Amino acid sequence: MSKKQRRKRFHRRTTPGDAPGVIAVDPQAATPRILAISYGPDDFQQTETRRMDDIAKLRGKQRVLWLHIEGLGDARIIHQLGELFSLHMLALEDVVNLHQQVKVEDYGDHLFLIGRLANDSEHGHTEQISLFLGKDFLITFQEQSSDWLDPVRKRLADANSQLRLRGADFLAYALLDTLIDGYFPLLEHYGEQLDALEDLITEDPPRSIMHRIHDVRAVLRSLRRVIWSHRDSIARLLHDPNPLVTNETRTFLRDCFDHTIQLVDVLEIYRETCTDIRDVYLSSISNRLNEIMTVLTIIATIFIPLSFIAGLYGMNFNTDASPWNMPELNWFFGYPFALGLMLAVATGLLLYFNARGWLFRKRV
Amino acid sequence: MSKKQRRKRFHRRTTPGDAPGVIAVDPQAATPRILAISYGPDDFQQTETRRMDDIAKLRGKQRVLWLHIEGLGDARIIHQLGELFSLHMLALEDVVNLHQQVKVEDYGDHLFLIGRLANDSEHGHTEQISLFLGKDFLITFQEQSSDWLDPVRKRLADANSQLRLRGADFLAYALLDTLIDGYFPLLEHYGEQLDALEDLITEDPPRSIMHRIHDVRAVLRSLRRVIWSHRDSIARLLHDPNPLVTNETRTFLRDCFDHTIQLVDVLEIYRETCTDIRDVYLSSISNRLNEIMTVLTIIATIFIPLSFIAGLYGMNFNTDASPWNMPELNWFFGYPFALGLMLAVATGLLLYFNARGWLFRKRV
Amino acid sequence: MSKKQRRKRFHRRTTPGDAPGVIAVDPQAATPRILAISYGPDDFQQTETRRMDDIAKLRGKQRVLWLHIEGLGDARIIHQLGELFSLHMLALEDVVNLHQQVKVEDYGDHLFLIGRLANDSEHGHTEQISLFLGKDFLITFQEQSSDWLDPVRKRLADANSQLRLRGADFLAYALLDTLIDGYFPLLEHYGEQLDALEDLITEDPPRSIMHRIHDVRAVLRSLRRVIWSHRDSIARLLHDPNPLVTNETRTFLRDCFDHTIQLVDVLEIYRETCTDIRDVYLSSISNRLNEIMTVLTIIATIFIPLSFIAGLYGMNFNTDASPWNMPELNWFFGYPFALGLMLAVATGLLLYFNARGWLFRKRV
Amino acid sequence: MSKKQRRKRFHRRTTPGDAPGVIAVDPQAATPRILAISYGPDDFQQTETRRMDDIAKLRGKQRVLWLHIEGLGDARIIHQLGELFSLHMLALEDVVNLHQQVKVEDYGDHLFLIGRLANDSEHGHTEQISLFLGKDFLITFQEQSSDWLDPVRKRLADANSQLRLRGADFLAYALLDTLIDGYFPLLEHYGEQLDALEDLITEDPPRSIMHRIHDVRAVLRSLRRVIWSHRDSIARLLHDPNPLVTNETRTFLRDCFDHTIQLVDVLEIYRETCTDIRDVYLSSISNRLNEIMTVLTIIATIFIPLSFIAGLYGMNFNTDASPWNMPELNWFFGYPFALGLMLAVATGLLLYFNARGWLFRKRV
Amino acid sequence: MSKKQRRKRFHRRTTPGDAPGVIAVDPQAATPRILAISYGPDDFQQTETRRMDDIAKLRGKQRVLWLHIEGLGDARIIHQLGELFSLHMLALEDVVNLHQQVKVEDYGDHLFLIGRLANDSEHGHTEQISLFLGKDFLITFQEQSSDWLDPVRKRLADANSQLRLRGADFLAYALLDTLIDGYFPLLEHYGEQLDALEDLITEDPPRSIMHRIHDVRAVLRSLRRVIWSHRDSIARLLHDPNPLVTNETRTFLRDCFDHTIQLVDVLEIYRETCTDIRDVYLSSISNRLNEIMTVLTIIATIFIPLSFIAGLYGMNFNTDASPWNMPELNWFFGYPFALGLMLAVATGLLLYFNARGWLFRKRV
Repeated sequence: MSKKQRRKRFHRRTTPGDAPGVIAVDPQAATPRILAISYGPDDFQQTETRRMDDIAKLRGKQRVLWLHIEGLGDARIIHQLGELFSLHMLALEDVVNLHQQVKVEDYGDHLFLIGRLANDSEHGHTEQISLFLGKDFLITFQEQSSDWLDPVRKRLADANSQLRLRGADFLAYALLDTLIDGYFPLLEHYGEQLDALEDLITEDPPRSIMHRIHDVRAVLRSLRRVIWSHRDSIARLLHDPNPLVTNETRTFLRDCFDHTIQLVDVLEIYRETCTDIRDVYLSSISNRLNEIMTVLTIIATIFIPLSFIAGLYGMNFNTDASPWNMPELNWFFGYPFALGLMLAVATGLLLYFNARGWLFRKRV
Repeated sequence: MSKKQRRKRFHRRTTPGDAPGVIAVDPQAATPRILAISYGPDDFQQTETRRMDDIAKLRGKQRVLWLHIEGLGDARIIHQLGELFSLHMLALEDVVNLHQQVKVEDYGDHLFLIGRLANDSEHGHTEQISLFLGKDFLITFQEQSSDWLDPVRKRLADANSQLRLRGADFLAYALLDTLIDGYFPLLEHYGEQLDALEDLITEDPPRSIMHRIHDVRAVLRSLRRVIWSHRDSIARLLHDPNPLVTNETRTFLRDCFDHTIQLVDVLEIYRETCTDIRDVYLSSISNRLNEIMTVLTIIATIFIPLSFIAGLYGMNFNTDASPWNMPELNWFFGYPFALGLMLAVATGLLLYFNARGWLFRKRV
Repeated sequence: MSKKQRRKRFHRRTTPGDAPGVIAVDPQAATPRILAISYGPDDFQQTETRRMDDIAKLRGKQRVLWLHIEGLGDARIIHQLGELFSLHMLALEDVVNLHQQVKVEDYGDHLFLIGRLANDSEHGHTEQISLFLGKDFLITFQEQSSDWLDPVRKRLADANSQLRLRGADFLAYALLDTLIDGYFPLLEHYGEQLDALEDLITEDPPRSIMHRIHDVRAVLRSLRRVIWSHRDSIARLLHDPNPLVTNETRTFLRDCFDHTIQLVDVLEIYRETCTDIRDVYLSSISNRLNEIMTVLTIIATIFIPLSFIAGLYGMNFNTDASPWNMPELNWFFGYPFALGLMLAVATGLLLYFNARGWLFRKRV
Repeated sequence: MSKKQRRKRFHRRTTPGDAPGVIAVDPQAATPRILAISYGPDDFQQTETRRMDDIAKLRGKQRVLWLHIEGLGDARIIHQLGELFSLHMLALEDVVNLHQQVKVEDYGDHLFLIGRLANDSEHGHTEQISLFLGKDFLITFQEQSSDWLDPVRKRLADANSQLRLRGADFLAYALLDTLIDGYFPLLEHYGEQLDALEDLITEDPPRSIMHRIHDVRAVLRSLRRVIWSHRDSIARLLHDPNPLVTNETRTFLRDCFDHTIQLVDVLEIYRETCTDIRDVYLSSISNRLNEIMTVLTIIATIFIPLSFIAGLYGMNFNTDASPWNMPELNWFFGYPFALGLMLAVATGLLLYFNARGWLFRKRV
Repeated sequence: MSKKQRRKRFHRRTTPGDAPGVIAVDPQAATPRILAISYGPDDFQQTETRRMDDIAKLRGKQRVLWLHIEGLGDARIIHQLGELFSLHMLALEDVVNLHQQVKVEDYGDHLFLIGRLANDSEHGHTEQISLFLGKDFLITFQEQSSDWLDPVRKRLADANSQLRLRGADFLAYALLDTLIDGYFPLLEHYGEQLDALEDLITEDPPRSIMHRIHDVRAVLRSLRRVIWSHRDSIARLLHDPNPLVTNETRTFLRDCFDHTIQLVDVLEIYRETCTDIRDVYLSSISNRLNEIMTVLTIIATIFIPLSFIAGLYGMNFNTDASPWNMPELNWFFGYPFALGLMLAVATGLLLYFNARGWLFRKRV
């Protein structure tokens, strides 16, 4: 999650102390487009309208009426829909208040669901989808226009589809299933990113790797919460006794539930992999420092005594002033003696380092 | 939480072995101001008084009597209120004993709630709010005077408000909701602080950053506990069968409960972000040290052998004393030979370092 | 917890395979002193005796008989008390076996409680208190003599006290409450220690700080377990249906239970603060090392090439032997040239270090 | 788990929005081979066929019909089997969708189980096994051909075997038991790997060890999830009231359940051992660096002042120009004085280092 | 746990696919010795036999028949005992399959328990003990011969012992209690080891300490699991309604249960202490490195510029060739000037280091 999005996330348009149920529309949001699909086993009809009268007439004509609203910029329309279908005002408030938690609320004659759609594989952003499920209707709200619903619409248009034979709850399941399955490509994307990071740390890793791990972890963290809450919501749909969801649909929801568990599992493995990659990286830094220090030690420690000997015989004591003053300088084999001394010291140190195992390090 | 506040927090005015129910007032606390609001669907009346007789007369006149007491400096008044409304003495003890846990206690004919108000976005301090909810009354206690209740009072004064149509439990909900929503701006504040910290660690971070992360973590830690306990308390209000809370109000409390979950979620993400920022920072320290050591190694390790050669030919062995004594000094190309030797050594070392990948480090 | 205490803790005087119910008295324990307090709403009588006959006569005279035994050095007396009040032998075994877990055992006609008293704020030691609660009696055992019960005795002596009006269960509650509240000053003490540690790590911290954090953590760890088990025991008293504990007393126990939760919360915060302090300290060590290395690098890396140049022109090649041998030595501006070369190298390195941001580090 | 496998894992052939129950066969999968075993207490018959008529005739002939299908490359055959035995379409979809979670689904008249077979001790890969358990049949699906079922087939062929006396549920248990027990050799393999890693870190460890620990951890992580979900599935079989599983078989399943617990326990210990090995390794790196630095410090710090003294008396100040200019050079004992000074400095430093305990480090 | 034991642990003699209930005896196991003790309130009789007839006759003679089998090398005897007492074949399989989990299995007319005996305080090894508890018999199996049962046998021989008055369930309790209490000396042993480790880390710690902490952690880890599973098993005995365990015995089992909780608590504290010791040790390594680096920095950084100055005036520029060539060499106060320059530089650096607080570090 980018910083910008985080800032946006926790800015609420309502202020503490406001009355509940206020539909606080974002002034920059798009004007709603309402797509009305009315279908039953034998019929399928699709229109676009904003007149409440048309919508009221469509209701009850076929087995199911599905209204899909794209754009949340008009509080009046949302309010009218709420009145027409007797939707609870707290739910309507949440529809326009984006960045809600994923949840299921049971308002007696209708269920209210909030889901989040994975629409941006690059930054792990998710978009809020609101669903109202009634006995004979399904109303879905979405902020932006996108094509994730197209496969479901195509299946609806197909007269042989299971969707046509069943009620609004099965349509809701089909949408939820599509939404959940949309996380699989997202996870594949991050799985590839982790593979790339794993490849990077085996060789000399760039310094930016901690920031990249940090970014991936942040996305996985927020995805985990989102998917976890989907899992909880679907579990509630599965287990709460509610006449709006038939047993037949529950069997399919169980499959959807399994997918969320699979997603959570993958995310957990990814998160732990992140931690492992970080640990391997940190240890590789230590190793590198260790290795560099070893080389420095060996070279420096060998030459420091040699340089001392050279410096010793570079002193300018007056050999004429006394026989004690550096007689080596006038020895016949003085220079070879000095070189021999240096060689002996260097050899001794090398043997010592070798004995401590510092010269050649196992690499396998 | 500053150290000073922590010290303050765990100092109790009662000593072990004291009888329960003692109202141990802080001698420096302010004198109570009592605001009495009596309202029903058709009427709204607001007075300020300290006479128990007036208060006793107000009770029952309208559907709800709300007493708001600011300042906890007078044990007598609190005791009188306790008698007038038959409040439990253990609850009254907690009213003046600030720094209580957030909690809900069921005393049969009245509920006792303790909440904490987020009144200081800078240090994450919270202020204790005590509520007594009875069938026809709500009594709220607060240490200091503040304006957080103003929006609710304005809504009460509005004859069209839902608040006027409902009972004391809905008023209690409205106050709880206002209190909980007050944490959102606080979290926004800390979200911005985390963003600032994240910006800092990408470049050369100042040394004080660990202390700043430490401070933010400490605040988030205490906020988490406060919000978590609000969550538990609201859950108890939701799920415990208690005739004082109507089903209608419970629907609204569920919304309030969702907000606490959202807050806890945000806090969890912030806490983990804190940890991540710290890890990235610590690894950047390691990286920096690593880089500095690499440069030192390269420069030092190249010059140490060169200096040794220079020192070697700086020795003063008497070339006249023997043909073995540093004949190089008298060679025709002695100096170029020495310089060439140095160049060869330096080149060899540079090639070696380059082969080990120490010279140029990937930065991307 | 000091090492000595830990060693003591897990030494049991019984050996594996011993029959249950053996009262294995510590041979160095003090001789018991028995204080018998018999009271009811109208009477209060206090005597000290070791004769079982006297005690048998006191029982039933007033509403409650409270026996307080200080010193556990006489197995015979404990055995006789056990017979007189039909106490279970497993419970009696635990009375003298100090270092028991805090627990509540229901033996049908009496309850057996073990609590631990915070009697040493310096090392976090706790002392075992055993309570037997019957219908009309309370028997308390304690190893050493101390004054923690004095406030309760004073309240008992006061004819207006609630204690006098209620039964043995309320007395047990009062003792438990006193015992629990005794942990608050202890926590205040450790809160101050943590403040002191926090102050220490902001500046150059002494090396002993890890050991001090280690000690505080060890104490907090054992305190946490003790308080947590008190919490569990009080919860069992609250929720288990037992006729020995009246509903009125349960209301008060709930208050006591809240205090344990508050203690656990504070301890959790302290533990996390410990961890944070340690992390800040460890990063400050890294920072310090980092800073020292930076200074070394800069000074050494600047002077090493300069020294090399000086060494170069300190070589003794015979300028007379060849025009190629160090002609610089005889140049007119030879020395200024060498100094200029050094200056150029030093300036170049300084510019390079500055460009990498190593010279001046942000400190804010 | 290798990276390649991970990539493979999360690639699904269905796309979001597809209708449920589509049997999306991998085009590269092998053509199914169907082995039909029909048995009862007195008879055992084994044939290989792909004709649905033959299979339909076999059903009901004996007490149990076991169909084992190897290869999942033909959607038509799977579909026909599904129709013949009334298998649920969601289950059939999962059969070909490899990389499913381990799970148990109850579809009323048949149970659907997914298990994973440990077939590759080198990389910890697992293969999906699907089971349909009906009243009189067991159908198993497997991707590849392998010999893990041979022992069970041999037992079936033996007329004295328990398997022959019992129903399909006992056969399912026998397969599950074989599958679970197949993890023991796998864990033995990784136990040996951990032993090898433990041996490596006691001496100078190779740099690749972090990567090897990382790999083992990754495998243990995925194994843990697989075994944990087997544990959950077997627990569901044990505790869910289902007429397809007899009480007699449940007793045996409990044994199988114990094995999964044992596996999980071993895995937990292995995981913690991994963490410990890593910590020991990281501390050994620190130790090594520490030791190398100590040697460098001692050697360098001793020779640096000595070299300075030698350099001092290598200065070329003109002793003739002034009596203040390096008169030591002309002293009678000038050179011995300089050597003595060096010896004194070196001795002093060695004593200092020894006093601080840096010269000889305890190794025990 | 040593590596050898771990290897041994997970080697199973049965292979995947084997039929359940096979008694796979270790060919190197000792031949069974069967000790038969038959007792009631008035009688106690002890014989050693391997003939099933004798054992069959003993059964029912007295209230309880206790068979104790040492050595598991004869599958036939175990099989015969199984038939004689109608023991379940899965349980018999577990008896010889050592390294089972601690568990309780209810087979209707008899209970099967597996416990582990702490018989080696040095390496934390445990030995498997199997118990079959029937209405009138107790059968215990043990691999090796040891004297842990002697105290119980002595108590049985004593006519006044509680054991004689009660049934087989109380005998089972007495054995379990002895087994559990056997862990206390073991924990005392490791408590002392931790004390020794704590003493070591306060001073210069040996390098092997990480390995020792690692070993202790490994033992504590496996002990924790063993004791935790004992705790669970005893809890099941306590809470499962089973007519084989009387309420009287349950009271005593509760005491035994408390001991396991105490053990788990101690182990938790030990584990956390291990972690703390490791952290303190790692920080002491950092501290040590820090200190050594500081000394190196100070000495090296002071002498490096001094050596440069000495090298400077050791250059051989020809002072005769030009007045610009090192005129300092011929100055009257040239040498004192150079020494003074060196002194000034050294003093300046010392003041700088002191100002940054590097010279004297607080040690308290």
